[in-house]
Amino acid sequence: MQIEPSPLARPFPQLPAISGVALRVARARYKDWDRCDLTFAELTEGTAVAGVFTKSACASSEVELGREQVKAGRARALIVNAGNSNAFTGYRGREAVEAIQAQVSSALGCEIDQVFVSSTGVIGVPLPIDKARAGIAAALEAELCGWDEATNAIGTTDTFAKGAGASAMIGATRVELAGIIKGSGMIAPDMATMLGYIFTDADVAPAFLQDALERANAVTFSCITVDGDTSTSDTVLAFATGKAGNARIENWNSPGADAFAAALADVCRQLAQLVVRDGEGASKFITIRVSGAADDDSARRVALTIANSPLVKTAIAGEDANWGRVVMAVGKAGEPADRDRLSIAFGGIWTAKNGLPVDNYDEAPVAAHLKGEEIDIAVDLGLGEGRAVVWTCDLTHGYIAINADYRS
Amino acid sequence: MQIEPSPLARPFPQLPAISGVALRVARARYKDWDRCDLTFAELTEGTAVAGVFTKSACASSEVELGREQVKAGRARALIVNAGNSNAFTGYRGREAVEAIQAQVSSALGCEIDQVFVSSTGVIGVPLPIDKARAGIAAALEAELCGWDEATNAIGTTDTFAKGAGASAMIGATRVELAGIIKGSGMIAPDMATMLGYIFTDADVAPAFLQDALERANAVTFSCITVDGDTSTSDTVLAFATGKAGNARIENWNSPGADAFAAALADVCRQLAQLVVRDGEGASKFITIRVSGAADDDSARRVALTIANSPLVKTAIAGEDANWGRVVMAVGKAGEPADRDRLSIAFGGIWTAKNGLPVDNYDEAPVAAHLKGEEIDIAVDLGLGEGRAVVWTCDLTHGYIAINADYRS
Repeated sequence: MQIEPSPLARPFPQLPAISGVALRVARARYKDWDRCDLTFAELTEGTAVAGVFTKSACASSEVELGREQVKAGRARALIVNAGNSNAFTGYRGREAVEAIQAQVSSALGCEIDQVFVSSTGVIGVPLPIDKARAGIAAALEAELCGWDEATNAIGTTDTFAKGAGASAMIGATRVELAGIIKGSGMIAPDMATMLGYIFTDADVAPAFLQDALERANAVTFSCITVDGDTSTSDTVLAFATGKAGNARIENWNSPGADAFAAALADVCRQLAQLVVRDGEGASKFITIRVSGAADDDSARRVALTIANSPLVKTAIAGEDANWGRVVMAVGKAGEPADRDRLSIAFGGIWTAKNGLPVDNYDEAPVAAHLKGEEIDIAVDLGLGEGRAVVWTCDLTHGYIAINADYRS
Repeated sequence: MQIEPSPLARPFPQLPAISGVALRVARARYKDWDRCDLTFAELTEGTAVAGVFTKSACASSEVELGREQVKAGRARALIVNAGNSNAFTGYRGREAVEAIQAQVSSALGCEIDQVFVSSTGVIGVPLPIDKARAGIAAALEAELCGWDEATNAIGTTDTFAKGAGASAMIGATRVELAGIIKGSGMIAPDMATMLGYIFTDADVAPAFLQDALERANAVTFSCITVDGDTSTSDTVLAFATGKAGNARIENWNSPGADAFAAALADVCRQLAQLVVRDGEGASKFITIRVSGAADDDSARRVALTIANSPLVKTAIAGEDANWGRVVMAVGKAGEPADRDRLSIAFGGIWTAKNGLPVDNYDEAPVAAHLKGEEIDIAVDLGLGEGRAVVWTCDLTHGYIAINADYRS
């Protein structure tokens, strides 16, 4: 977190301790950073796990293994390496992950496939096994730490630490959720380029946790974009330790299932929005609401096409209510649309309705809205009942400076 | 052409006069420009026409009408309005186009559907009929002009005039082709955001001209991208006056058909590359060659995903051989790919092979290549025989400055 925080940054929240989760950090020295870069979360026996991963065809070994591991549904440890993504490193990358799993499973006396590993950073350099091994040894000896330290240790180009919490009542038992996340560039759905971890003391069956996480993902992490670029390492994992002592949630008919799922989705939404708030070069947080689409999937694709349009993003950076560029983006989305039914609003003021500019609409509140940090674009396609909401940020000189000046 | 020419600009070429084509320009004063903004090309009777148009679902009335008009295969006039795209203007936009067609068809004594109209510029403002009418009246009275004047009159944000020529032998008869084009932003395939016109004195059946144009389009205009944004008005028209007196080309078996199609494709390729060279903010011209894909379509989609990746484009702007970002783009393309068969080269030097970085490759020639203006990225997927070549430019502060500072 060496550089200026994003103007859209939020303070790190107070997060509850989650019973059954022990956090430690250490210095593996993957890069020349004067900070911890290895995070170790020890999870109590019986912890349920669920995960969603990048859809990249060139995913890292961590992702390939993680996709398999979540199927068994149990976790005892999470290790996150920052500064080296270990992606595109072939068999050598896989050996590094397996070495970490062997060391941790031996230390904790657990199955190898209960040790989850994530790595983030430069692509194409195999994770140095000796550094990982020394880092894990140090972490095993380290004092327990808090959420803020763990969050700082998983960050790479992040300009601020990002966390979110929630709680839910399951019968008479209150359960807590705490989530942390890293990510600020190479962000697009399926999933956004990021590593996110949600911990809860709730007692939840793995299959239900997976289903609830996938549903939350569909309307949160899969609805954000910074630059339309998708990482090879994106991962969101949810861990449920069961220490709260609630009546176990087995499925959607279990008491408290909806409350728990809502709290999980709430944490996911907060974390997803924080990633956009740390979007590289972001100066505006943009909410794009599409309604009247043929169906919800179509609405989401139209919203993402608007959100990824460089011309729309630069117009917002320039505080310009350029609805013509929104029309352009709707037109190129490849989804059902009818020019003569299309309506567009900025900040709740309709500037175009049913395929025509609105004559003499009040420009003053639109201009005032665009000068703010929170921009709202609404698009109604006038065709059906499909809706979606997507979050993105503007495209500024800051993005170019960060990404053209960065050296691999 | 008020601003600094692109560093990648090319001088306007010497183009042959095309017998049967009379060019005139006038001032319709659609914007406060101190230049001509209405171009009038009168075409001899019997001129064949073919066209390809934007796939935008929100296309302008000009495009909607043009798609129908090319089916009849005959043209007598082309009118191009610059400064106002007349897109998203509902029935009022359509009335403006029909008024222009009526005026020109009456002046030339031809069918209404032989009068082709294109408009480019701001979206959402109906083309003022009175200005168009006065402009056409002035053009009908004007002196004949040359290709350079016509090309300047169709430009909007272009920083240099773009034209290309070719010739072909059909039997013993030499035929000439001259093409002009405008476009520099909102450029993506299907089609690129641009207006392009190709004129030839060859005698060609309309159906053959359409087929040859579509084939050329698939490997030229549909293989360029500046920002992935697709205009509502993209149009390329080809006009064949038949004045060269060659034996008429009826189909691909006619003598000279291949030579003519090759010349047409050559002009299209030159024009398409010139649009990329005028890409907003461009400082590097990038050629992306994908081989080893499952098929040619898959190769093209992978190449376009690389070409549209903001992270790849900014890496090239920063003269960084960041092949990790190329891996990322391949992974997100949604096409068949195998991380462990993927190879990547910059300037002919393989930096990654079969899923692994190449140890100790010679960085000096790669660094020297990236400092140049012409960047070559090769990606071999190692799967099949599919190939494609796509052209794009880098993403620089110039793009942000042009598009965030522009006011609609």
